[in-house]
Amino acid sequence: MSLAETSAAAPAAHNAPTAAAVGGGAGRNVAIVGGGLAGSLLALALSERGYEVDVYERRSDPRAEGAEGGRSINLGLSKRGIQALTEVGLIEMIMPLTVVMRGRVIHAMDGTTRFQPYGKNRGEVLYSIDRSELIRILLDRAEKQPHVRLHFEHKLQSVDKDARTLELETPDGARTVRPDWVICADGAFSRARPEMHRGLRADYHQEYLEWGYKELSLAAGPNGESVIDLTALHVWPRAHCLFVSHPNRDGSHTLTLFLPHEGEDSFATTQTPEGVRALFKKYFPDLQPMLPSLVEQWMARPTGALLTTKTAPWRFENWMVLVGDSAHAVYPFYGQGMNSAFEDCSALLSSLKLHPNDRSAALTAYENARRPHTDVLMELSKANFIELRQKVNSPLFLLRKRLDVLLNRLMPKWWLPIYTMVSHTTMPYGDALLRARKQNRILGGVAAGLALAVGAGAWWALRG
Amino acid sequence: MSLAETSAAAPAAHNAPTAAAVGGGAGRNVAIVGGGLAGSLLALALSERGYEVDVYERRSDPRAEGAEGGRSINLGLSKRGIQALTEVGLIEMIMPLTVVMRGRVIHAMDGTTRFQPYGKNRGEVLYSIDRSELIRILLDRAEKQPHVRLHFEHKLQSVDKDARTLELETPDGARTVRPDWVICADGAFSRARPEMHRGLRADYHQEYLEWGYKELSLAAGPNGESVIDLTALHVWPRAHCLFVSHPNRDGSHTLTLFLPHEGEDSFATTQTPEGVRALFKKYFPDLQPMLPSLVEQWMARPTGALLTTKTAPWRFENWMVLVGDSAHAVYPFYGQGMNSAFEDCSALLSSLKLHPNDRSAALTAYENARRPHTDVLMELSKANFIELRQKVNSPLFLLRKRLDVLLNRLMPKWWLPIYTMVSHTTMPYGDALLRARKQNRILGGVAAGLALAVGAGAWWALRG
Repeated sequence: MSLAETSAAAPAAHNAPTAAAVGGGAGRNVAIVGGGLAGSLLALALSERGYEVDVYERRSDPRAEGAEGGRSINLGLSKRGIQALTEVGLIEMIMPLTVVMRGRVIHAMDGTTRFQPYGKNRGEVLYSIDRSELIRILLDRAEKQPHVRLHFEHKLQSVDKDARTLELETPDGARTVRPDWVICADGAFSRARPEMHRGLRADYHQEYLEWGYKELSLAAGPNGESVIDLTALHVWPRAHCLFVSHPNRDGSHTLTLFLPHEGEDSFATTQTPEGVRALFKKYFPDLQPMLPSLVEQWMARPTGALLTTKTAPWRFENWMVLVGDSAHAVYPFYGQGMNSAFEDCSALLSSLKLHPNDRSAALTAYENARRPHTDVLMELSKANFIELRQKVNSPLFLLRKRLDVLLNRLMPKWWLPIYTMVSHTTMPYGDALLRARKQNRILGGVAAGLALAVGAGAWWALRG
Repeated sequence: MSLAETSAAAPAAHNAPTAAAVGGGAGRNVAIVGGGLAGSLLALALSERGYEVDVYERRSDPRAEGAEGGRSINLGLSKRGIQALTEVGLIEMIMPLTVVMRGRVIHAMDGTTRFQPYGKNRGEVLYSIDRSELIRILLDRAEKQPHVRLHFEHKLQSVDKDARTLELETPDGARTVRPDWVICADGAFSRARPEMHRGLRADYHQEYLEWGYKELSLAAGPNGESVIDLTALHVWPRAHCLFVSHPNRDGSHTLTLFLPHEGEDSFATTQTPEGVRALFKKYFPDLQPMLPSLVEQWMARPTGALLTTKTAPWRFENWMVLVGDSAHAVYPFYGQGMNSAFEDCSALLSSLKLHPNDRSAALTAYENARRPHTDVLMELSKANFIELRQKVNSPLFLLRKRLDVLLNRLMPKWWLPIYTMVSHTTMPYGDALLRARKQNRILGGVAAGLALAVGAGAWWALRG
């Protein structure tokens, strides 16, 4: 039993918190609720900075045989995530597990494909990684630290902010722990967040997308070769639905279908083998032959929902703080869920370093620096979905997109498309949005100028 | 014990719901969670339409001596609320309890006042009513109905949507009830709403205002006479805070101060008698002499928070539905909290009448008809607060306001200010907003035209 723990069997003595816990930043005993990507990364980083870390994860150890999979959506590691993994010294170990994605391959209805590089140079690529592989590495590394203790099947029940204790449900019964401070990294359906917010004037927004998702596997060929280009993200964009695929190292791809939950051609109409086959025949005729086990896979895999959230505040005094999905869940269309969560971890570590003796100031600085930008990311990821759905077929939209890319080629230092800023830089999301808006105004002017020039040219030609 | 009830002492037999409950609209046994304004109004109306009604209210009976007061903010009954009370045949009984407010009296910093009538005619007035008096009447009347049972100190613990049961905590222990259907009328902090939403893809938004409120009493004079005009709403608008007063029949007024929670001149700086006096000296020098017990009242009264929420869906199958604050809490600045809740009740009753044998259709029709409009009300009440705070001192804003009123006088049928549409009509909120936007565009044009005319006139004058 660690020092920060009291037993619930003997009723927890809700003593006044220790001076260290109440005071500045002296308390070194931190509890992390949630052993996902952000939680395990922070465990590792904080233990290296001299903290005693207890991680409480409600699921069983994902590294054990037969453990439940948890949620996935294959991950695309981009600049922000790479930066954070570099800071904790893990990037060298993780890179070999990834598959480089140089760009997107767009699959049209007629089976033709078109390649769009992500950027102008080798640096502007994404790295596909298997979520469960990444989490296993992070947990293995965290566990090897002398000052990290991982507690699986420890489910947060409630928080007593006055007594500064967490009540946990464990296979051995209830446990009460009293850490010096607490990091909530327990995801979009966080149990810690509402507990932290109890009695505060907390804002909270959650929205489900009318589309859900389902993952399927596109197996490698008989000799382990990929049946589509391995080093790219593949997209099958349709007005009504969307397939995205991420490559795996074994030559297979993880396909994710985004589709409305209800209505015509939806998850509701694909409950039967006939319904599934009809959907693929209508929208993905080129994919169907590559998926011999389509119907079996479809029926066996769950349908996921897509949730986005934002909230404030992210902290309670010097004692509790949110990171990752518990603070801001986003739709996956920008590929920034993990990347932004890792960036949160970096931001939190920087703030702790800036205010070594005043944790309240550190948590405040972290929230103030970070929340405005993740709020923007939420809006960006919502807008990106609308763009995917509505604008792809608009000629004006396509003209502007092409101008955007063209201007970037002509002035690579001065003109950056928003996607580039989000995925290939560590420019704060809010700054990226402001710059994109400015560029958009110029784009509008350039487009109008082009139209005017064409009009004037036509007039001149007709006149002459 | 009613037919719909099983005892929790003998573990509840979670039988399959009866055919009546699963099927159409045949089940007549309705549970209302929350015995506030909407809950008690619906109890009354539904019992008159042949339903068996059980109301479960977590508080004790507010009519008992020494009962806790609950929240207040004096109420301004307007057109929509009057309409609903007329439908349930209560308006005759309630009107004598109200005080007519013919308009607003604006109190400037220097003590001068200005009267603004609410409308052009006797119909366009508001009626001030004491919330606790109104609730007492509704409960008294509901209780007299043979088919209504009021259960106080019955706190909803959980909902089992499969078994179609409610678990309640009562002074006599746990109770399980199994109504044919359930109306959730338990307010902004609804316990029923999250239970209904469990497992659904439910959207939910909550935002607290950075301002809170505190109620004070402005006593009547020695002979029961009002010390300020009795038949008006009084407003002390300041950029930094706001006092509003509602008249009571005994000549007293209920004052509500809206003030920031934090920062300079806020609830945080008025924790001491000196702080309170300094605030009043700075912003309300004319009010201070009328409030001899200011400091005592200030310290004794709680500080309230202002919450606005919106959510979807409002219903679960044919079994559960939200009304009033549990569906859409609003800021009080439009005076539409109670009025919109009563309008919900009307809308629900109409939908039930339209679909007498299909409750699922009735609840769907109710939500589809109503939710878009209360979503608009939420936006209106947020915008109204920003207007109160930021625009009151802008000359351009005042010019537009005056034009708005002038155009209404010139064309009373064709031009209605948004406030008039919200407060003095039953036009759906969304329709009112659309019409206001159209008028606003015209206003912009008229203002520009006026500016142009003035400019042209000046040019002509200077030229000649």
